[in-house]
Parts: sequence; structure tokens; C-alpha cells
Amino acid sequence: MDKLFLSKSSVLKSLLLVSSFLVALAVNVSTVEARIRHHKWELKYEYKSPDCFRKLVITVNGRSPGPTILAQKGDTIVVEVKNSLGTENAAIHWHGIRQIGTPWFDGTEGVTQCPILPGETFTYRFVVDRAGTYIYHAHYGMQREGGLYGSIRVALPDGESEPFAYDYDRSILLNDWYHKSTYEQAAGLSDKNFSWVGEPQSLLIQGRGKFNCFTVTDPNSLCDTSNPECSPYVLTVVPGKTYRLRLSSVTALSALSFQIEGHNMTVVEADGHYVEPFEVKSLFIYSGETYSVLIKADQDPSRNYWIQTDVVSRKPNTTSGSAILNYYPNHPRRPPPTPTPARPQWDDADSRLSQSLSIKARRGLGRPPPATSDRVILLLNTQNEADGYRRWSVNNVSFNHPHTPYLIALKHKLTGEFDQTPPPDGYDFKNFDIWVKQNNSNATTSSGIYRLKFSTTVDIILQNANTMNVNDSETHPWHLHGHDFWVLGYGLGKFDLFKDPKKYNLVDPIEKNTVPVHRYGWTALRFVADNPGAWAFHCHIESHFYMGMGVVFEEGIERVGKLPSSIMGCGASKGLGFP
Amino acid sequence: MDKLFLSKSSVLKSLLLVSSFLVALAVNVSTVEARIRHHKWELKYEYKSPDCFRKLVITVNGRSPGPTILAQKGDTIVVEVKNSLGTENAAIHWHGIRQIGTPWFDGTEGVTQCPILPGETFTYRFVVDRAGTYIYHAHYGMQREGGLYGSIRVALPDGESEPFAYDYDRSILLNDWYHKSTYEQAAGLSDKNFSWVGEPQSLLIQGRGKFNCFTVTDPNSLCDTSNPECSPYVLTVVPGKTYRLRLSSVTALSALSFQIEGHNMTVVEADGHYVEPFEVKSLFIYSGETYSVLIKADQDPSRNYWIQTDVVSRKPNTTSGSAILNYYPNHPRRPPPTPTPARPQWDDADSRLSQSLSIKARRGLGRPPPATSDRVILLLNTQNEADGYRRWSVNNVSFNHPHTPYLIALKHKLTGEFDQTPPPDGYDFKNFDIWVKQNNSNATTSSGIYRLKFSTTVDIILQNANTMNVNDSETHPWHLHGHDFWVLGYGLGKFDLFKDPKKYNLVDPIEKNTVPVHRYGWTALRFVADNPGAWAFHCHIESHFYMGMGVVFEEGIERVGKLPSSIMGCGASKGLGFP
Repeated sequence: MDKLFLSKSSVLKSLLLVSSFLVALAVNVSTVEARIRHHKWELKYEYKSPDCFRKLVITVNGRSPGPTILAQKGDTIVVEVKNSLGTENAAIHWHGIRQIGTPWFDGTEGVTQCPILPGETFTYRFVVDRAGTYIYHAHYGMQREGGLYGSIRVALPDGESEPFAYDYDRSILLNDWYHKSTYEQAAGLSDKNFSWVGEPQSLLIQGRGKFNCFTVTDPNSLCDTSNPECSPYVLTVVPGKTYRLRLSSVTALSALSFQIEGHNMTVVEADGHYVEPFEVKSLFIYSGETYSVLIKADQDPSRNYWIQTDVVSRKPNTTSGSAILNYYPNHPRRPPPTPTPARPQWDDADSRLSQSLSIKARRGLGRPPPATSDRVILLLNTQNEADGYRRWSVNNVSFNHPHTPYLIALKHKLTGEFDQTPPPDGYDFKNFDIWVKQNNSNATTSSGIYRLKFSTTVDIILQNANTMNVNDSETHPWHLHGHDFWVLGYGLGKFDLFKDPKKYNLVDPIEKNTVPVHRYGWTALRFVADNPGAWAFHCHIESHFYMGMGVVFEEGIERVGKLPSSIMGCGASKGLGFP
Repeated sequence: MDKLFLSKSSVLKSLLLVSSFLVALAVNVSTVEARIRHHKWELKYEYKSPDCFRKLVITVNGRSPGPTILAQKGDTIVVEVKNSLGTENAAIHWHGIRQIGTPWFDGTEGVTQCPILPGETFTYRFVVDRAGTYIYHAHYGMQREGGLYGSIRVALPDGESEPFAYDYDRSILLNDWYHKSTYEQAAGLSDKNFSWVGEPQSLLIQGRGKFNCFTVTDPNSLCDTSNPECSPYVLTVVPGKTYRLRLSSVTALSALSFQIEGHNMTVVEADGHYVEPFEVKSLFIYSGETYSVLIKADQDPSRNYWIQTDVVSRKPNTTSGSAILNYYPNHPRRPPPTPTPARPQWDDADSRLSQSLSIKARRGLGRPPPATSDRVILLLNTQNEADGYRRWSVNNVSFNHPHTPYLIALKHKLTGEFDQTPPPDGYDFKNFDIWVKQNNSNATTSSGIYRLKFSTTVDIILQNANTMNVNDSETHPWHLHGHDFWVLGYGLGKFDLFKDPKKYNLVDPIEKNTVPVHRYGWTALRFVADNPGAWAFHCHIESHFYMGMGVVFEEGIERVGKLPSSIMGCGASKGLGFP
């Protein structure tokens, strides 16, 4: 059971008890409506059949996806996580929550905390300081795709209203799904005899998919299409009403399209920021992104409609994920009378770039970016080999995080715990040919990080390239912890440091925390390094980050308060934080 | 690679560096031959095909079984264990090594140490103070059957000789093997909708078995009987020579028979103690036991012979495990011209009890037990339900170990970390009917332990009973950490506290660390509680211990030296042991 306690009065009591959260709570106390939202979660391995194929899944209180966290802006979320995974540790990241003042509760193993050991309970406590659509998921090894994920929905305070109207609010999580265990996948990726995870077995809409069990030839494998656990997700709508759908993708690998047969969608929010509304038939959504779209139930109410998600950007080898848009009072299980909708062309890169370019801050509600930046960091994304292992690299450095979390090592000046040489700020962008098959057998691995001067403005250019296969470039969704960034521009081909910045959108760029870098393209971002802590920035494709596609930023470490002892206990942090 | 460094001179240097090992090393320094045997191990998940079926296996330096530890009596073994298991912790138990003076290096998660976290290196350091045959294996969750196990062979000091003659010395590990992951097995056992692990898929001799791949119908599963990883183990012998075979069983479940076609075996050692020699055609060996047998290569040298192991005591659903006794110079892969030997009758309980009774201390070399005991503890073994879960219990208490290791909780007086009420010293042995199907839905779970007065003599009576199925009683091999015990007697039926002790063998009882409790029978043990520490005593069937079939003894905790900080970091031990 997900126990949720609301208590306004207990805020003051907690103030006396939990001294290390004084700052965060003080903010709450000043907001009349701020509440403490208290959850008790237990993580377990349980057999589930999300796509009709029975396998071990990491559950939260018996469920995958886990319970949805509902809150209002300014609330404090408290989640007591009990790890009952047997012999395996855990950590949970609150994706999109900037953790201002609580960098130690970002939930990123190796960056902001030691993992939670089996048998132990770790308490996350943080303020949700902005309304919007967020997610949570495991941030340790490849546990996210093991099933540990869920939705966070932060509403405006009472009395405030969104700049768009709707009658009902629904959260829908999209995911891809693999039948191999995360252990099997990780072992293949980290073997010298490299074995790729391959395309997913199915796509899940709100945790439900449909694998074709007839392709399973092993009679011992329990695949049963009549299992109620894999009956399709049903979104019931009342004719004439408008629905806000909060769509989030936590895919391990896949870029997705999402469509609702016969219904256009109006995009109004992205990663917690208001979007100047635009209509789409199909929404492209990358792993780590969240969107709100509005749909109106204004079609023939005598029938149901297909909700469908498909793999794009990679040649699909996975059937569409399907759910039902159910017009009340039709029976929710009544199949739509029409065939499932056509998939978008998986290799239609233009449409995807076009959608990226369409996402602008809502007029009058966007926060303008600083006009100039203090530092520009060019990050070349390449597939590589390093020491004979297949890796992904940034500026030819493949990230290898240490086991004393950076936040602790930095705060306690444990300089021996990671490579003190920062990775390079750029690469030979004049001469590097992004179009040819790379023969990158020469990457280095490093645990070095980027140290940012506090409160400075930083531009990041993510440059894509050809992989180690001919005519192949992949889409990478990059996610920044602890911040939002302004998306200043996208381009195809090689970024030109002298020409392209002149075309940056400084008028109405959207703020986001996750952004795609398109095939053979570049993406330019700007953010202000004003959140003291250590923050991961990485490709949200789980196997890519596992293979080294990420960096870490440090800023204002001297301003970080006393670290809670609960995040310690591993590596050189054994015994730190204890009297 | 298993890096082995021998260094006599470094002993003194280490003395200066590692103050906490002063006592142990001082013993070594006084022994001229004592060496430090230094090993560097890395634990990883890798795909292996031990029985031709490819699955993830926990390897030590790329191998399963791991490297054999070779040492001489009095040597100090140093093993630096690097955990590269991704998201999973580890701990390694040195089975049969009493850890005198180093109770913190017994390697039992939750009892003597916190687990080793991924990315960390833990250094075990202990003295092997007695020649003999021992094993090491994981002691965390169900990792042992994941493949983490190996042999320890301790020779006599130079110049000393065994009370029997042989030309060559060989270690052979026996195991049963499952295709499901330990996660899948553990999830089934700890589900309210209980799912038993079932009989093993194959039996391994020195890590090699042969699963019948033709029964695998899933074309995606990689089962290949021609894989060299599962070619049978070959023991090459020179005609006329005598071989000492050190046989150890680390099975997850199975009691085994072991035979060599056409060759009788003379039993000469059990669990590191000399046995009054006796001959067997088939040796019965239970999980956690080790034996040395002598065989003479005195048969027709023009052919090879079968080595065979079979499941006994449970109705077998597993084919025999086979290996080759290869008479030099026949080709090692040449199959014996005869069919594989007949299996012993699996349900021939008399022969097994008879073998147990035959194992006596070697005349003149056995250490006599104290004539009387200070305390008698009766331990009734039953299958139970507790809170709706299927469990195993001792005196109706199912063991549930805490996540702050007992050794740390006891030494640092963290009384809140486990149940301070000890489990009962007995049960209603007069009225309890061991012969009927039990309807034990009423067990309690507890983390309570037995506190033993230091240096007292303790008798333990292990009493077996019917399970929750009609006409069913299982054989349980009980293993004691930190001690050897004298085996005073075995009996069938109900132990009689007034009559049976009069029949105890106080003349030449064998000392062991693992002993079977036969179906519907009892086994009586005596040991002296003179090794300060906290010690597990449990059924060595991995799923039975997982389901609560164990207890913990404490003795002389006040005499335990300063605990190394490396064993801490979990539960209430976070920060303990640090300045």
C-alpha cells in the first residue's frame, strides 16, 4: 500500500526534529498551502506479465509502474524507500525535480548518493517547486528498465490556473520492454565479446503491452495473452470533454511516436514548462521527456478509438503498443471498428526535427535566457571502442563513474576518488568528419568532471556523428539533472561555432531538462550554473549511459550544506558524516 | 588471472602496517614456514555453459568454480575481492576455516559483515590453522548456486606427513545446477504464492555437467552439447599410482552419491579431520561436507572408467553427473566401453545412515570430547508456514536475519538491531509426533540468537520430523561456522533425552563442521564455545536457509578485538568504526 499522509501542522514539528532540512522546510512554511506528502514504498522483485510474458519485475508496493506521486507546487515530498530486492541495491531519481537546496536527494547512484542496501530504508525528502509533469525511476545500473518507474504530477497551488483549459487530467507512461533481465543485458554490454540489447520485445502504455506469445516456442515460458495483467490500458472519456494527457517516456532505448486515432493533440507543456500551443497528429517523444497534450472527445461517441505508440528513428522490430480511448458509455473492452492506425515513417527525420523546432515557450510566460554565455562546451557524441570494449564517448572520453559519489568526494575534498583532470571542453570541430563511419578504437575512459563557475551561464553544443556502422547515426535524448536549460537551436550537419550561434533563438526558447540530438545533427543549450551540487548530464538511453555516454557538472560545491549521513556508506564515504 | 604472491619477508612489514592483525600474524611468525598467500579476485556476471546451457554465472577471475586456494597449515590467506557484479553485493564464506581471532572475516552477510558493494574491494585475511580440505562460497542471498564457489586445500607443513600414503592429490567439487537465476528462485520462495525451486537441471563434477539440450524447445536459448565448456571433467591417473581425491559438495539442494566405476574408495578425511579408514563403493556426500578418499589406479589400464554422481534422498529428476577417470596413456576423451554404473537406490536410507555411523576419528589422532556438557539445546527441524509464507523453522521459530550484522550489533551493544529474546532451547519432545504430516501454520519469525557462556560445552540435538506432506521427511545437512563439533550419535525416530545420551560415542567421535540429519532421525553434536564471535549454524541447503532454517550462536563477544571498519557500512553500522 502506498501510504499518503497530508499534514500541514506537522511541518513545525518536523522543523524541530529534522534540523538538516531547515532551509527546505522554511520555504514551505512561508507558503500557506504547502503540505508534506508522505509515501512509504517497498521495492521487490516479483513476477509480472506486463506484456503477457511472465518475468521478474522490480515493483514499488507490488506495482510497476509504481504509484503516481500527486502534489501541489511548494509541497514537500517524503518517500521512505525500503529496499527488499534481496542482494541488489537501489537508488531512485526524481526526474525533472531540480532538488534546489537538496542536491543529495537527486537519487543518482555514484553522483549524489551511495546506493540503498537491501534491508535498508532510505528517506528522500525534497520540494516540488514548480507545477508540471515529471517522472521518477531507478538510477542505478540498468534498473529502470527492470520496471522501477512512475509519474509525478505537480499541480498549481489552489486559486492559480493553467493558461489552458481542460476538464480532466491523466498521466500516461510510455515504455519499451525487454524479456531479458537487466543482468543479462548488462553482461552482454560489458563483455569484450560485445552483445547488444537489440530492439525491445514490446511497447508498454501505462505499463501494459501485448507480446505475441505464439512466437514463444519454449513451453516452460509463461506467456499468456489472456492474462489480465496485460489487458490494454483504457482511457475512458466523456463525450465533449477536454482531457489533459501527461505523456512521459521512460524507454530504455526507443524514440516513440504517440497518436490517438481520429484525435489531434495540442501540445501545451514540455518538461514542466508551458509551450506555445501547436497541434500534432503524432507526438514524437524521447526517453526522459514529458509533455502535456490536450485532446477533445469530439468524435463519433458511439465507438472506441485506438491509442498507439510506435518506434521511430530506429528501424522497428517491435509491434505497435496499443491502448483504447473509450468513449463513455461504450464498453471499455470493445475494440475499435477500424484497423490500427498507420505507423509514422520510422525514418522520417524531417518531421521529428520539425516538431523539435515547433516547441517554443508560451508567449508571455517564458523566462528569457541570458543574452550571452560565459563558457561554451562542445560535446561530440561518438560510438567508440576503449580498451577493446564497445563504448559511447563524449569528446572521445567514455564516462566511468566512481563508487564514491561525486557530491561526497567534492564536498569532503576526497581528491583521490575520481580523475581530477576534467574532460575536454571541445574537439577538433573544424576537421572532424561527422558523416563517415567512425573507426574509433581509441577512446579513453575517465571519471573526470566539468567544474563550472558558480552562477555563470554555460552553453552546451551536443554534436552527433556517424556511428561505427556505415550510414548510421542515432538519436540521443540528453537529460540534465538539477537544472532546466533553454533550447537555443537545432541543426543538421556540423555545428559552426562562428555562424550557428547567430541563429540562436533568444526570444522564446523553451526550457527543458531532456532534449534530442537528431541524427547527424546538433542541439544547442544554455543554462545557468546556479544550483550548488554535482549533476549528471547524459544520454537517457539506458544502455548508452551504461556504456559511458554522460558527463558530470559541478557548481558551487562550497555552497552545499552539510550532507546527510544517509547518502554515505560506500567507497571512501564509509564513516563520513558520523560523529 | 589469479595473482598469487608468496612472501615470507613481507610478514614483518605487514606487522608494522596492519596493526589489527598482530595476533594472527604473530602466530605465523613463530612458524618458520608460514607464508602469506595473496590472491586478487574479481567477481563478475558472465555467460557460461557449465552444463551446455548458457546462462549468467557469477565468476571469480572469469571462472566458475573459482581458483583453488593452495596453502600450508599456518599460512595466512589474503584475498582481495573486487565486486564487479553491477548492482549486486557479495560476501564470501571460508567454509571449514574457524577464523580463530578473526571472526569478522567469516564472510557471512548479516552475521559477521556487511555485504561488499559493487565497485568496492574487500580484503579477507585469515590463518588456515589446520591441514585439510575446505571450500569457499558466497554467503549472501542465494549467490552460492549462482556459481561463486571453489576449493581450499591446506597441506601439512614441510616435513610432516599424513597418516596415509598417496602419490597425487586432486580436488573435485560436486554441485547441482539450476537454469533459473537466483533472483527467479528467491522470488518464488519468498512469494505468498509459494513456488519451489524444484529438482536441479543437472549435476556438475568440477564445474562441468551435461544437460540434455534436446529437451530445450526454445530456439533462442543457447544450449549446445558440443560447447567445450561442458566437456566432461577428466581425472587422468597413472596406472599403479594412488590418488587422494578431495571431494566437496556445494549443492544448493541435493544429497549426492559419488562413485568411480570399478574402484573402491578408502575414506581417510572428513571436514579436515582424519577418519579411521573404511572402504566404500559409493560415497554419500551432503552439501557443505568435504572428504578425502584414496583410490588406487589398479584396474585394467587399457581403458577409461566412469566417475559418477547421483541424487539420493530425494526422488531424482536429474540425470547422473558424469566424468572420466582416464588411465594414462589412453585418450582422455575416449568413452569407457561399459554403460554408466547403476545409481544407488535413492531411498536407501539405511546405507546412508550406515555410512554416517562408520565415520570415526582415526585411532590415536582424534581429539577426545569433553565427557559432559554444560548445556543441551534440542533443535526440532520443521517445515512451517509463518504469516502465510512457506518457511523452515527450528523449535517453531523461523530465522530472519537482520541487516546490521550480529557481530557488530553485539560488540557495539546495538540492542535494537535484533530480537533480544533468545529462541527456545527445546520443544515439547515428549508429545511432539515427528511421524505425522505437520500442519504448522503457526511458526513465528525472529532474529533472536543463542547466547552461549564462553568456554562451556554445548550439546546440540537436531531432531527431524515429517514435512507438511504425507510420508515425507528430508535430509538436512547442518553446518556450523567457527567451530568443529564432535558427532556423538545418530538415531532414527524420536530422540530420547534420558536414554539416548547413554549411547553417545565419547571414545572416537569424528569432528566435523557439517553433518546430516537423516529422514525421521536425530543427530547429536557437542562443541566447546571457545571461539569469540557470532556464528551461524544452519541447514546448508541454500533454499532452506533462505527460508529460515538456521540459528546464530554468540560466545565471548567481550573477548572479540576491535572490529575492522571494512565490515561496516550497513544498517546501524553506518559510520561505526570510524574516527
